[in-house]
Amino acid sequence: MSSPRGNALIGQSGGPTCVINQSLVGVVEEALRSDRIDHVLGAVHGIQGILDGNLIDLGKESTATLEAVARTPCAALRSIRKKPTREECEAMLRSFQENDVRYFFYLGGNDSAETAHILNELAVAENYDVRLFHVPKTIDNDLRVTDHCPGFGSAAKFVAQAVMGDNQDNRSLPGIKIDIVMGRHAGWLTAASLLARRYEDDGPHLIYVPERVFSLDDFLADVDRIYTRHGRCLVVASEGIHDANGDSLLDSGERDSHGNVQLSGSGALGDFLANEVKEKLGSKLQKKLRVRADTFGYLQRSFLGSVSEVDAREAREVGRTALRVATGGEVPHGSIVIRRMGDGAAYQAAYEVTELANVARETRDLDEAFLAGDNDIDRSFLDYVAPLVGELPRPERLSDHPFSR
Amino acid sequence: MSSPRGNALIGQSGGPTCVINQSLVGVVEEALRSDRIDHVLGAVHGIQGILDGNLIDLGKESTATLEAVARTPCAALRSIRKKPTREECEAMLRSFQENDVRYFFYLGGNDSAETAHILNELAVAENYDVRLFHVPKTIDNDLRVTDHCPGFGSAAKFVAQAVMGDNQDNRSLPGIKIDIVMGRHAGWLTAASLLARRYEDDGPHLIYVPERVFSLDDFLADVDRIYTRHGRCLVVASEGIHDANGDSLLDSGERDSHGNVQLSGSGALGDFLANEVKEKLGSKLQKKLRVRADTFGYLQRSFLGSVSEVDAREAREVGRTALRVATGGEVPHGSIVIRRMGDGAAYQAAYEVTELANVARETRDLDEAFLAGDNDIDRSFLDYVAPLVGELPRPERLSDHPFSR
Repeated sequence: MSSPRGNALIGQSGGPTCVINQSLVGVVEEALRSDRIDHVLGAVHGIQGILDGNLIDLGKESTATLEAVARTPCAALRSIRKKPTREECEAMLRSFQENDVRYFFYLGGNDSAETAHILNELAVAENYDVRLFHVPKTIDNDLRVTDHCPGFGSAAKFVAQAVMGDNQDNRSLPGIKIDIVMGRHAGWLTAASLLARRYEDDGPHLIYVPERVFSLDDFLADVDRIYTRHGRCLVVASEGIHDANGDSLLDSGERDSHGNVQLSGSGALGDFLANEVKEKLGSKLQKKLRVRADTFGYLQRSFLGSVSEVDAREAREVGRTALRVATGGEVPHGSIVIRRMGDGAAYQAAYEVTELANVARETRDLDEAFLAGDNDIDRSFLDYVAPLVGELPRPERLSDHPFSR
Repeated sequence: MSSPRGNALIGQSGGPTCVINQSLVGVVEEALRSDRIDHVLGAVHGIQGILDGNLIDLGKESTATLEAVARTPCAALRSIRKKPTREECEAMLRSFQENDVRYFFYLGGNDSAETAHILNELAVAENYDVRLFHVPKTIDNDLRVTDHCPGFGSAAKFVAQAVMGDNQDNRSLPGIKIDIVMGRHAGWLTAASLLARRYEDDGPHLIYVPERVFSLDDFLADVDRIYTRHGRCLVVASEGIHDANGDSLLDSGERDSHGNVQLSGSGALGDFLANEVKEKLGSKLQKKLRVRADTFGYLQRSFLGSVSEVDAREAREVGRTALRVATGGEVPHGSIVIRRMGDGAAYQAAYEVTELANVARETRDLDEAFLAGDNDIDRSFLDYVAPLVGELPRPERLSDHPFSR
C-alpha cells in the first residue's frame, strides 16, 4: 500500500495536559522532514477549526518557537470538547478534500479516538484516501491497549509533589485534610498520591478511587480510625467516586457533548466530604474538628514547570511515531500505543500502533491488582508509576531526640 | 549589655511556608557555633510544646538531616495556632527558667510576633534574662517594617506558575475561570499573578485584592466586558475580598484563637463567584457559559519542588541573623526585617532588627501605588516582586500564520 502525497493536518482535543504540545511538535518535526507531505497544517480548536476553515500553517513556525511551544502546557492549537454530528463529519471530509489533506492527526483521549474512528469510516465509504491517526493524551491514563498515556506522568508528578507537601502541612497543623484529584472514571491519577507515603505515619492515609463503591459511612469510620491513631488524617479521593448505583455524590447536572458530567472546576465534592466529617465525626467524637479540603483542579493538567522528563520525551516520540507510521504506508489508520519494556531502572518504552476501534469510547480502569481493600492502593503500583514520574524531591523530618535536663 | 549563657529554644507557629525550615536551620547552625549557647532545643508544635514539656534536642541532628529538612516545606518542628493566656505565658516563662532557656526564637507571622512581645514583657517584669526574637515568615507578605517576608517569594512563584498554566488552559478551552488565592487581609500574593501576563490578551484579565471593596455588580460587569472582548476571561481573586462593610462574601463562622475567620481549605468562595457568573451573566447574555473555579489552597504554602531560590536563601539568612543579633548582646529582643538594597539585577537583601511591638498584631496592605483601579495591579509591582521570585519558565504560543490554498 503506497502512501499518498498531500498535506498533513493536526488538531488537539479534550482536556489539556502539560506535554500535549510535545506530541504536536513531534508530529510537526517529522512531517516537515517527510517527502509525502507538502504543508503541515494546524486546526485551531480541533474539529471546530476544520468546520470553520480556521487552519494555520505550522511549517512557517521557527524551530525555536516550536521547541518553546513543546515546553508549554495545554493545547497550543487550542482545544475543543465536541462530538461531531454526521453532517459535521461530512463537512470535515469535504474540507480535507478541498485542502488536499491526506493525513489527519487528532491528539486527544478516547472521545477523540472515537471522532477519528467515525471520520475514518466515512472516508473509507466515500473512497477518499486520508490516513487518520489518533495521538493519545490524557492525564486520566484511562486509554485502552497502551501501557500508559502521555500526560499522565507529569500529572502524577504534580499530584505526588502536592500530596508530599500537604502531608507535611497536615503534620505541621494536624487535622483532617481531604484532597480531591482528577479522574472521571479511573483512579490512576489518584493512586499516584501513594508516591507521597514514606514513613509509616505519612499520608495519604486513605485513598479512594472510582473502581470501588464509595460508602459515606465506611469513609467516616475510616477517618475516625486513622484520626484516633495518628491525631491527623490525610485523605486523597478521586473526583469520580460514586455510590453503589454509580451515581456521583454530587451531580452538578452540567454535561459535555459526549455526555460526561462536569466534575472539575468546583470545590463542591471536597467541601461536601469535609462538612460530613466535621458534623458527623465531630458529633460522634464530641469535638470541634479541624477539617479542610483542597481540590487540585486544573493545576494538575496545566501547572507550568513541573513536568516529568520521561513523560515529555515519550509524548514527543508518540507524535513522531504517528507521523512515521502514517507515511510509512503499511497502516492506513490507528492509535499510537506505548508498550513497557523492562522494569525499574531498566524501564524503556516501545511505540506501536493499534486499531482506532480498540481505543475509541471505552476507558480502562486501574488494574485490580493495584487496589488494596476499599481505601488504599497496593505498593506494587509504585513499580508501575515511578518510572513514568521520574525523580521526585524527597522530604525529610527531624529525628525528634527528646531533651530533658 | 552582655549576653547570657544558656540554652536556645526555637518554635514554629502559624501557617507553614515552603522555606520556614530554612529559617529554622539558619538559627540552629549559628546556635551550634555560638559560645553563648549550650543546647539548641526545639519546641514541638510551638508554644504548645513548651507548655507540654515536649522539647527536642536539635543539636543531635546530623548536618545532612538538617540540610534535607531545610529543603522540606512546612514546619519540621510542627506548628500551632494559639494565642496564649496570661497563665500560659507565666507557665512558659517557668519552663524557660527550668530549662535554662536564655534565647527564644519564634518563627511565624504577626500573631507570633505578638506572642513573643507578650512573653518579653512578662520576662522583663519578672526580671528573667531571656532574649526573645521573632523570625518572620508568611506567604501573605503582610508583616510591617520588612520589605518582604520569607515564604512570600516561593508562594508567589507557585501562584505565577499556576496562573501561567491556567492562562494556557483557559486559552485552550475558552470560558470564564476564577482562581482563588490565599491572603487574609492583604493582596500581595494575589498580585503576584500579574507575573503570568505577557501578551496583551493573556490572563489574568482581572485581579481582585482585599485592599479594594469588592462589588459583585462591578465584578459581573468586568467579566462581561472581558469575555465579550476576548471570548474568555481569567479572574484571580484573593480569598480575603470583602464588601464595603468589610464583611467576607461568605463567612463560614469558623475562627481561630486570634479571631481570624477561616477562609482557606474550602472552595466555597470560588464556587459562589462561578455560580453568580453562570446565572446572572449567563441570563444577561442568554448563553450557557462555561464557568469554572479553582481554589489554589494549601498547595501555595506547601507544594514540594517549586521554591524560589532567592526566598530560600533569604529565609536561611533571616534565621542566622536572628541568632547572631540575639547573642551579640546589643539588642535584647526584636524581629528580623529585610531591607531591599538595589533594584532589578542589582537586587540585594540586607538584614536588620526592629522592635517586636512594630511587627506584632498589625498587618501591612499592598502599597497604594501597586493598585490599578478596582480590578488590576500596576505594572510597577513587577519590579517589586520579580527579584523575590527569581527565574520563571516562559510559556510560548504559536504565531498562527493563516493557511489558505
